[in-house]
Amino acid sequence: MGKLRVTVWNEFRHEKESETIRSVYPNGIHQAIGEGLGTTDFEISYATLDDPEHGLSEEKLQNTDVLIWWGHKAHGEVQDEIVNRVYDRVLHGMGLVVLHSGHFSKIFKKLMGTSCDLKWREAGEKERLWVVAPGHPIVEGIGEFFELEHEEMYGEHFDIPQPDELVLVSWFEGGNVFRSGCCYSRGQGKIFYFRPGHETHPTYYNENVRTVIRNAAKWAAPTTRDYPKYGKAATPLEPIKGYNG
Amino acid sequence: MGKLRVTVWNEFRHEKESETIRSVYPNGIHQAIGEGLGTTDFEISYATLDDPEHGLSEEKLQNTDVLIWWGHKAHGEVQDEIVNRVYDRVLHGMGLVVLHSGHFSKIFKKLMGTSCDLKWREAGEKERLWVVAPGHPIVEGIGEFFELEHEEMYGEHFDIPQPDELVLVSWFEGGNVFRSGCCYSRGQGKIFYFRPGHETHPTYYNENVRTVIRNAAKWAAPTTRDYPKYGKAATPLEPIKGYNG
Amino acid sequence: MGKLRVTVWNEFRHEKESETIRSVYPNGIHQAIGEGLGTTDFEISYATLDDPEHGLSEEKLQNTDVLIWWGHKAHGEVQDEIVNRVYDRVLHGMGLVVLHSGHFSKIFKKLMGTSCDLKWREAGEKERLWVVAPGHPIVEGIGEFFELEHEEMYGEHFDIPQPDELVLVSWFEGGNVFRSGCCYSRGQGKIFYFRPGHETHPTYYNENVRTVIRNAAKWAAPTTRDYPKYGKAATPLEPIKGYNG
Amino acid sequence: MGKLRVTVWNEFRHEKESETIRSVYPNGIHQAIGEGLGTTDFEISYATLDDPEHGLSEEKLQNTDVLIWWGHKAHGEVQDEIVNRVYDRVLHGMGLVVLHSGHFSKIFKKLMGTSCDLKWREAGEKERLWVVAPGHPIVEGIGEFFELEHEEMYGEHFDIPQPDELVLVSWFEGGNVFRSGCCYSRGQGKIFYFRPGHETHPTYYNENVRTVIRNAAKWAAPTTRDYPKYGKAATPLEPIKGYNG
Repeated sequence: MGKLRVTVWNEFRHEKESETIRSVYPNGIHQAIGEGLGTTDFEISYATLDDPEHGLSEEKLQNTDVLIWWGHKAHGEVQDEIVNRVYDRVLHGMGLVVLHSGHFSKIFKKLMGTSCDLKWREAGEKERLWVVAPGHPIVEGIGEFFELEHEEMYGEHFDIPQPDELVLVSWFEGGNVFRSGCCYSRGQGKIFYFRPGHETHPTYYNENVRTVIRNAAKWAAPTTRDYPKYGKAATPLEPIKGYNG
Repeated sequence: MGKLRVTVWNEFRHEKESETIRSVYPNGIHQAIGEGLGTTDFEISYATLDDPEHGLSEEKLQNTDVLIWWGHKAHGEVQDEIVNRVYDRVLHGMGLVVLHSGHFSKIFKKLMGTSCDLKWREAGEKERLWVVAPGHPIVEGIGEFFELEHEEMYGEHFDIPQPDELVLVSWFEGGNVFRSGCCYSRGQGKIFYFRPGHETHPTYYNENVRTVIRNAAKWAAPTTRDYPKYGKAATPLEPIKGYNG
Repeated sequence: MGKLRVTVWNEFRHEKESETIRSVYPNGIHQAIGEGLGTTDFEISYATLDDPEHGLSEEKLQNTDVLIWWGHKAHGEVQDEIVNRVYDRVLHGMGLVVLHSGHFSKIFKKLMGTSCDLKWREAGEKERLWVVAPGHPIVEGIGEFFELEHEEMYGEHFDIPQPDELVLVSWFEGGNVFRSGCCYSRGQGKIFYFRPGHETHPTYYNENVRTVIRNAAKWAAPTTRDYPKYGKAATPLEPIKGYNG
Repeated sequence: MGKLRVTVWNEFRHEKESETIRSVYPNGIHQAIGEGLGTTDFEISYATLDDPEHGLSEEKLQNTDVLIWWGHKAHGEVQDEIVNRVYDRVLHGMGLVVLHSGHFSKIFKKLMGTSCDLKWREAGEKERLWVVAPGHPIVEGIGEFFELEHEEMYGEHFDIPQPDELVLVSWFEGGNVFRSGCCYSRGQGKIFYFRPGHETHPTYYNENVRTVIRNAAKWAAPTTRDYPKYGKAATPLEPIKGYNG
């Protein structure tokens, strides 16, 4: 089996506009994420909002096994046509890992069917992520919990469909909890939402965060099978009394 | 507790255009569904595609506890604005029962986040619906299975998210199976998809079908609680070290 | 519909042995729970460990719609024969609400198929229970969260099967989280696990706790249908080629 | 990563007692299953009921990543001590693939928490297994459905907890349906129940059946992480007001 082809998509605006954020992620959040994946198991490429077609041409997506998505302040600028293209690829099997503020991206909301709204607070508070599904491959190599000293808070109620599998739950210093690692399938594709990663904190350098993203990319890898045949199935598989269709 | 306010929505085109179908449902599919609900527990009203605002004004929806939806050939004519209005009401708690070809309605696809595609065949074949969740309130009063002598076939793969609860599975004479009774929650709202009901068959006069729809309407009844507060939650519930927000 | 017949089962040892605990629950935890249910919708009776057959005769269980279970220090004294009797009734439709340290009862472990182990700490710390399923009938009448000033801590990992529906998640002052409100179905029966209720704290007088237990009892009410027929089904429903069974 | 260590457990009584069955599986069902797994990805060993400790010594289980289980007529002869040993290993991460009549094994019932009862009929009828989770790794390499010309029928209601993931649904010639491929997690272990495999039919030579079992073994592979720490956690992770524990 060859390497998994991962495309890391980043809005890449904060890093250009704010020196503070640039100092945390000098090459952009996407590069920090890609660096964390490493090249042993992955063939990594990047795409950003301001690339032509947001870097997500039909060809690019056809050659992507797993797409990682970070966006925040410019969700509205992502063209519907590209959203629909990504959506179609997910239903056909491409994995999707949605990070942090990507909860409000068009693609995540379209796949979830809910508002994906939540509570939030920027107080640089402590977050402790607890493993609630200890046998799940996404938390392999993670202890019973891990901590992020300073993060933005996301709190319940998080308006998502009940996850197919809930893997992580966050405790926040300020008194909130959050379902932080959520697995879904849509069509032939697998989707993982992972909470951490505010742009002002060095979260994507954290080894536990990197392990989770690496595991999630592997978990979300497509299976190789034909897309189901939908539509008219006139010829029955078994005889039907009185029917000669 | 007063009666549940149920609005039955029907596309209501087949019945006008085809004498054959009109002979099955002379007053429209919606009336047959409403008649099956009965007025003991429900206060029933009707809405159809060709009514102003498709019969689904803001006021009408605010006064609807559970919306039942039957549509087929004119999904594309349902205005996006009305779809968004129904969507918003579901997230705020209104129940939604989607019947048969409503699987391809805009509102169901929007709430599911998938294509909702399936296999189908019009061969008037036998369908046998098996109860796979015998403790579920939606199948109260139903035996181990029930049969419909002649129905359109819907077959797997049915491209829906994994149901929160799977209640019924259909066996078809022609060799197919189908997940025929599927429960979901979205926001504060409950959604039930129920397969049977092709326009050429007298399915909505069937006592078992009526029992399931009646139970589903009760199951999908809204709970009475405030909509969650989303967005900025600047004031923490607990002190955060170094934060005076 | 008549009143729901609820039996509240309590180990009833702590209250007899400790004056401190007796001062919190002078008539036993069961009485405080029953008082919280009220008699408007429920016909309440009580059963305790030291009653003959632990108060759970075959007849008693046949006349119980929902059983509420509180146990802690004497799980081992509950006879296997009675456990099997309760188990059988749950599979046949009786609802079961398991409270707090009941997580380690024989009946809960038998129904879950896991160790039901967890982390715990008696530090009288603050617990805040967040609603994560805002449309669920079990949290009707509850705000976005509610607090218990002093409770025993139960922390993840909680070794249970993934709940069919997760309704509440607890935040603890000492840094832990817990899945505090978990729905399951087993056979025809519905089971709700609800975390709070350490014997040294007046938790079962708390109005929010009482509301949840009241709602849970209603949610767990049996449906009225025949038990499925299992075993040999020699006569096919459809003809089988070459078979004349 | 080395090869996955799979132990195939077989009751191995039918094959000894019946010449008909022996003619189908001359070396026992276990050997046919093992042959289907192949040695490319697996290191295979065998264990049977009449071996000392049923072939499942503590050491053997410690060196088993995934256990495959076929049993039928002698479930009662499996010693409780061995059942508990297997159970403990599953909670600690060992995968378990339960085949066909293994639905009534002590170990499966203990892990499910239900009766695991079902309808059955030996009429040698046709079974068609439909994929309902097309992106799931367990059905990689399988078409939209596959057929077994002659099999025992298992029909709903199948008294299992709702699967975490439902992968396959069977259509039977005689008019029944069945949830034929069911995923669960228990503790750190993953469990897959797979329906086909009556002892009188050459089902375990079928290429699709073999593919599913091979995929299931890989899917059920343990993750490598420490078992969670349960029990007293006296020292809080965060300061608790008024507590110096």
